[in-house]
Amino acid sequence: MSLIITVNRQFGSGGRELGKRLAENLGIAYYDNEIITELSKRSGLAVEYVNSIVEHKPIVYYPITIGRSFLSNVPAPVDMNEGLYKEQHALIKDLAKENDCVIIGRCADYILEDRKPFRIFVYADTESKLARCRLKADGLEKMTEKQLLRHISEIDRERAKYYRYFSGRKWDDPGHYDLMINTSSLDIKNLARGLADSLSVYKT
Amino acid sequence: MSLIITVNRQFGSGGRELGKRLAENLGIAYYDNEIITELSKRSGLAVEYVNSIVEHKPIVYYPITIGRSFLSNVPAPVDMNEGLYKEQHALIKDLAKENDCVIIGRCADYILEDRKPFRIFVYADTESKLARCRLKADGLEKMTEKQLLRHISEIDRERAKYYRYFSGRKWDDPGHYDLMINTSSLDIKNLARGLADSLSVYKT
Repeated sequence: MSLIITVNRQFGSGGRELGKRLAENLGIAYYDNEIITELSKRSGLAVEYVNSIVEHKPIVYYPITIGRSFLSNVPAPVDMNEGLYKEQHALIKDLAKENDCVIIGRCADYILEDRKPFRIFVYADTESKLARCRLKADGLEKMTEKQLLRHISEIDRERAKYYRYFSGRKWDDPGHYDLMINTSSLDIKNLARGLADSLSVYKT
Repeated sequence: MSLIITVNRQFGSGGRELGKRLAENLGIAYYDNEIITELSKRSGLAVEYVNSIVEHKPIVYYPITIGRSFLSNVPAPVDMNEGLYKEQHALIKDLAKENDCVIIGRCADYILEDRKPFRIFVYADTESKLARCRLKADGLEKMTEKQLLRHISEIDRERAKYYRYFSGRKWDDPGHYDLMINTSSLDIKNLARGLADSLSVYKT
């Protein structure tokens, strides 16, 4: 059994930082945007396009089957998306087969369930998520507080929808995580060090 | 700032074991039944009596004030309980003042909020709680599965009520914990070691 760590996280909670630090401390692979780059390679689609599809909520839109016979050569958009999702699922399974790793988001905990991943959910209170977003300097820091709050809750809503769509589960339900980490008053660097130490016994 | 770790836990989840191991690894005080013994000393009441009051749900029963004037010399039972709770709260504050420590249950996370404790909630799935209870050999192992399930959910319901009564909060709400630990597939000993290592930097 290899060590697979999955990290689901609220936007602005520092889940990505925690995942990255865990991977560094453990000396294992880290997969986040790398998945998008690889998907873009495999599908021949632009990185931005792949990202726009797989990072956001699935379009729950089913083509009218009767109508499709007229357009049988034109792939309906929903099919294209479904294909990308399937490709992403297959890629995640491939990556986890190859080596010990940390995977950020993307329903990896659900997709790899039979591999018994160590499932982490990272969250934080509103105030510290706002503070973290302001530090990012990727445009978010220019938003008003109201805009930023709306942005944060929109992204989390999309993540929850995406998760529900594929797994049928509630995204932030403690029942299907091994560890729920509230980063509001935690030193992520410090926690990652100790946690990596605990998890290192499962490395292959 | 001293290191205060509070552990709330579902019955049968191994929260007590985790707390004990954290205290051992960190070399700090551990308070669980010690609180009852000390309360019994302070109040002059029997350990069993103190335990029956403070371990279970508060009796939400208010004496009819009009009627009390006739019995002004007889303390109403609810006053006795309230006194014990107050004494317990004061004792918890005293203990946390003296040294770094781990405190199990008893709303310590709420009572010591201004001391910024590291707040842990330990939970597990039903199957592993049943298995843990069966190992305890304290009478629970003789119960049928149905009896044991009822027992587990009754105790958790009382803990949740107790917590709600004093803090006004939902007992298992991730928002007021730093770490939520699902012990269903975790090695508690191993996790406690790494976690203690992370927390050791806060020791006084």
